[in-house]
This record gives sequence, C-alpha cells and structure tokens, in this order.
Amino acid sequence: MATKKIFIEACFGRETEYTPVWLMRQAGRYLSEYMAVRKKAGSFLDLCHNPELSAEVTLQPVDILGVDSAILFSDILVVPNEMGMELNFLTGEGPQFSKPLQTDEDLENLDMSASQKLNYVYETIKIVKNKLPENKALIGFAGSPWTLATYMIEGEGTKTYSKVKKVIYQNPDYMHKLLNKLSIVVEEYLENQIKAGADAIQIFDSWASALEESAYFEFSWNYMKKISANLKKKYPEIPIILFPKGIGAYLDKIDGDFDVFGVDWGTPMRLAHEKLGDRYVLQGNLEPSRLYSREAIDSGIDEILKITNGKRHIFNLGHGMLPDLDRENVKYLVKLVQNKTRKK
Amino acid sequence: MATKKIFIEACFGRETEYTPVWLMRQAGRYLSEYMAVRKKAGSFLDLCHNPELSAEVTLQPVDILGVDSAILFSDILVVPNEMGMELNFLTGEGPQFSKPLQTDEDLENLDMSASQKLNYVYETIKIVKNKLPENKALIGFAGSPWTLATYMIEGEGTKTYSKVKKVIYQNPDYMHKLLNKLSIVVEEYLENQIKAGADAIQIFDSWASALEESAYFEFSWNYMKKISANLKKKYPEIPIILFPKGIGAYLDKIDGDFDVFGVDWGTPMRLAHEKLGDRYVLQGNLEPSRLYSREAIDSGIDEILKITNGKRHIFNLGHGMLPDLDRENVKYLVKLVQNKTRKK
Repeated sequence: MATKKIFIEACFGRETEYTPVWLMRQAGRYLSEYMAVRKKAGSFLDLCHNPELSAEVTLQPVDILGVDSAILFSDILVVPNEMGMELNFLTGEGPQFSKPLQTDEDLENLDMSASQKLNYVYETIKIVKNKLPENKALIGFAGSPWTLATYMIEGEGTKTYSKVKKVIYQNPDYMHKLLNKLSIVVEEYLENQIKAGADAIQIFDSWASALEESAYFEFSWNYMKKISANLKKKYPEIPIILFPKGIGAYLDKIDGDFDVFGVDWGTPMRLAHEKLGDRYVLQGNLEPSRLYSREAIDSGIDEILKITNGKRHIFNLGHGMLPDLDRENVKYLVKLVQNKTRKK
Repeated sequence: MATKKIFIEACFGRETEYTPVWLMRQAGRYLSEYMAVRKKAGSFLDLCHNPELSAEVTLQPVDILGVDSAILFSDILVVPNEMGMELNFLTGEGPQFSKPLQTDEDLENLDMSASQKLNYVYETIKIVKNKLPENKALIGFAGSPWTLATYMIEGEGTKTYSKVKKVIYQNPDYMHKLLNKLSIVVEEYLENQIKAGADAIQIFDSWASALEESAYFEFSWNYMKKISANLKKKYPEIPIILFPKGIGAYLDKIDGDFDVFGVDWGTPMRLAHEKLGDRYVLQGNLEPSRLYSREAIDSGIDEILKITNGKRHIFNLGHGMLPDLDRENVKYLVKLVQNKTRKK
C-alpha cells in the first residue's frame, strides 16, 4: 500500500494526523539557498527555464521548513510568454510584456500550441517527483485566464487597471475571445502537469479583486470554474484548489466543481467557514506580515485554528511570503501549526 | 423657512424628490475648467493653499454636472503636512513625505496645533458657502487616522505596506500613540470645517483594505468611530459619512454612531443593503470604470437602483473618478440617476 500524502488527504476533507501546512511563495528570496541557485541560473526567467535548478528551489522549502507540500517553482507568465508575447522581468519593477495586446490581429497571432512548448515545466515536475519523499505532495499551478489576460493587456503591473477595464466595459467580446483562448491553453497546460506527476493543482487568480461582483463572475470565476470542472471529470483523484485573491465580499456566489477554496487574508476565516466550509476544504489564511513577529504568529494561528478546529483545513498564508522575512520565524510557524493540530 | 438641501435630507434617510447624486473626485483632471484653474494656481499644493481657487474648483462640478452636493477641494495630506511633515507631489508618482515617521522623537515632534494652521481650508469653505445655491450642500472631509498614519510611515504610496505593517505587528503601541494624536487633530479639523459652514462630513479611509479584519477594527475603524461619535454628540444636525474602501468582507462588525456608510464598488450593494441598510443610509457604488461606456452606465445604475429602490440611498461612484473620463458620460450619469429616481 502506498504511503499516504497528508496534504492530499486533507484536500479531500479526510481526517489527517495533523493539519498540513505549506506557504504560498515558500520558495523565494527570504531563503539564502534560493538566492544562491538564482545567482547560478542567471535571470529569473532563466531559472524558470532550467528544470534542474527549478526542481532544486522547489524542493528547498520541504527540506528547510518541513512543509507538507512542495509547489512547482515557475511563474504564471510563462504561459502568455509561450503564446508568443515577449516577456522581461525588470529589477524592482516586476514583469513587463514588450508588446501588450491591443488589436484583433494581436489576438489572432497568439500561439495556441503553447502548452506543448512548456516542456521545461513538465521536466521540472518529473525531477521533483523523483526526489520528493512519498508522504509529501507536489502542487502544480497556473494563473487564471483573467489574471493572465490582465497582464497581457496592461503589459505590466497596474494600480488602476484602466486599459483592461476599458476593454471589459467597451468591448467585452474581445475580452471573452481572449479568455476563451487562455482557458484552452491553461487547461492543456494543467493537464500536462498532471500527466508529468503533479499531485494537485492550484489556480491563482491574483487580480480577482480588480473586478466588481458581476464582472468578476462573468470575466473570471466562470472560466476558472470551467477549467476545474473539466479537469475534475478527467482526473477526479487530483485535488483542485482555486485561489481568488480579495473577493471576500462575493462568497455568496461561489460555486463549482473543485476541492479546496484558498482564503486570502482579507477574507475572515470565520466568514469563509460559514459560507463555504460545508462544501469546500478551506486553505489559508494567515496575514503574511504576521511573520514579522512571533507574538503575531501565535495569535494569528490561534484565531484561525479556533474556527477551523482541525477540520477540513489546510494551513497557509493568506497571500505570498514577503521577501524580507526572517526564515527562523517561518520555520517556527510551520512547526507550531503541525504541533498544535497533532492528534494525541 | 430655509430651502431644504436634498443631499442632507437623504443623509438622514428622509424621503426626497429624487435620489441625490455626487461623485467622489468630481473636481478633477477630466474637467478642462479644472485644468485651467490648476495651471493658474501653480502646483497641486499651491491650489490647495489658495482659498479663492480651491473654492472655484469646488463649485465647478455643481455648475457643470448638476450634482446635488459639492465637496471641499483639498487633499487629506494637508493634515500631516501642517503637523510638520514636509510634503511633495511628484508628477506621475503621487504624494511623498521627505522624512517619514520612524522614531519616538518623530512622534513627539508632531505639531498638535495643526488644526489652527489650516485656515486656508476654512476660508475655502466660507467662500463656497457664499456662492453655493441654497438647495445644494457642501461636504467637508478628512482622511481617517489609519490612512494618514500609513502615508506618514510609508512616506508615499505603497503596494506592500511593509513598513506600516512591521509597526503594527512589532510595535503596536507606537501605532496607537500616532493614531491617538491623529484622531485629536482630525476631530478638531472637522469641527472647524463645520464651524466654517460645512453641511456634512465624510471621512475617507482609503487604505482600509490594507488590514486584516481584527487589525482593521483595532487600528482604523475604532478611531473613525470615536471621531464620528464625538462630532455627532456636538453637531447632531451634521451628517457623517464613513467611507472605508475595500472591506466588504468585514461588514458584520460595522457599528457606531454615524449616518451614511460609503459603499465601495468591491462591496456588492446587495450585501451592504442586507447587512447595514436598516441602520445606515448607503452611499455608492458605481464602478468608476463603467463611465467608459454608456451601456455600462445604464446597466450599472439599474443594478444599484433595483436594490436600493429609491430609499435611504445617495448615488455615488464606488471610488474616485478616473482622470481620463469623457465629461459627457459623467453628465449623462448624473442626469440619468436624477431622472430615473424622480418621484412622479
């Protein structure tokens, strides 16, 4: 009988010996081991393109922190990049596409065979799976169609989202065409990750909160939901986690066929538990800035565990790890959650 | 008998002949008339310091758009500026304090007599009130202690809020000391605005969504609530509007003595109506980007009015006006709301 992976068991709401924990952006700059590999690789994109080194940084948090799941090291923007959009990561400024989408022709020119060009990702997954202890899981991931589309139209990070909002309110058909194309590619990409060995999938909808409620369900949630439903039909044994960041006021309308709802820190766990806890396992949601202080870690963990009570819950941050955190505090957090929730 | 101001009547939940409308940041760059005055004034801060010209841009939207209320033209950061913090508005980058707060000494050095140095604001209010039609109201305003404190510690706009979050999780006493000082000054400032003639007060908590729920109530809402309660005790006839941006997931815990709750576009009006509609008049909440398209204006208005049904509601945007909007669309919006809600 195969060793059970506690993270996967928890995704399906089964009882586990303790509440599993992993941390969004657990492989990253706060680890000197990551910085060393990053230096060896060259640019950030060079690192994403290098399966050996990507696998190495994917595994680091499992070894160093003792988290219960690894998450593939990559970037959501490799997808539009392989659809033909030139991508640069500028120091201190984040990602930038040199030619954002504007015309119908730009849309036509997107390469729909992108999922076949992402072999370096599938290769990374295979290497990680060979090295990962049997009781630990590997999470594959992609960006949601909406979040990817936003980057592709804005060209870079934005505060106002004014370009993409002009499109949705002036030319919604254009947006739906783009979202349909992205949905096809993202679904193929995630299916290939599963075939390469990913044990679970998370879809990151990082820019969910850019949209008012009606627009959110029309332009984002419905597309994520469809991808998830299609994957669940083919791979019922692979848990799907959806993480829409910043839509705690829209929980009344959340539905669909997926396993785990990722709760961001702006959504009180109490509210998520009340609205979604009977239908989905909840993941989250410690405010990442609490990692600046052990007292804040202690009280934050207690607040969350008081609500979830060790049931149908995967512990995580409510957003990605910050770059300037003290690794000892991160290790402290992981151990504390595992110990506090351990069944006697 | 004095002419009734429809906006004020609506703030107290009384029946009015139509739903009054005003728009956050209604005086601004999308109006060529504003740009002309701005040019005459010099810098943005020069404009804020000039009562005659500030009054002129305050009145423009009443004349041009036909909104039911003017709002004082000024900036929330004049308060920390008069507390002794040097302030610059950099083109394209927004406001910046040259020496952000860091030490206990910085805190000690804040000038607690700031409200007496804001005479240019009180002067603006007096000029506006002399020129404003009797049936229109003038709203005075201030930033919430939390939002001001964030700027004072970060020094400028921020995506991560990492400096201010380090303070709240590592040194909460420092933050409470600062928030207490700001609360005293903001309350005096608003009281002076009322004495100068402001008919209503709005407190903008623009950075509410930077905080998780428990931190939000501890570091922001409780301070706004206290200022509001103190003012209501002294000036029960002056409506108070609180506008916390982006905390739609925290509505269960909203309470206090104020009149109008400002609903941002990320909080569905349906939800605000359900949770708060019996206790507070609701203001809002059209997604400002809908002003890019008449169709989107039409459907957005219908969605909101279907819920409020002409009762206990002030129409507004769910956040500030964008700089690149078509003024004809803005005029169209104002007229449409007034006509659609007019009692036959």
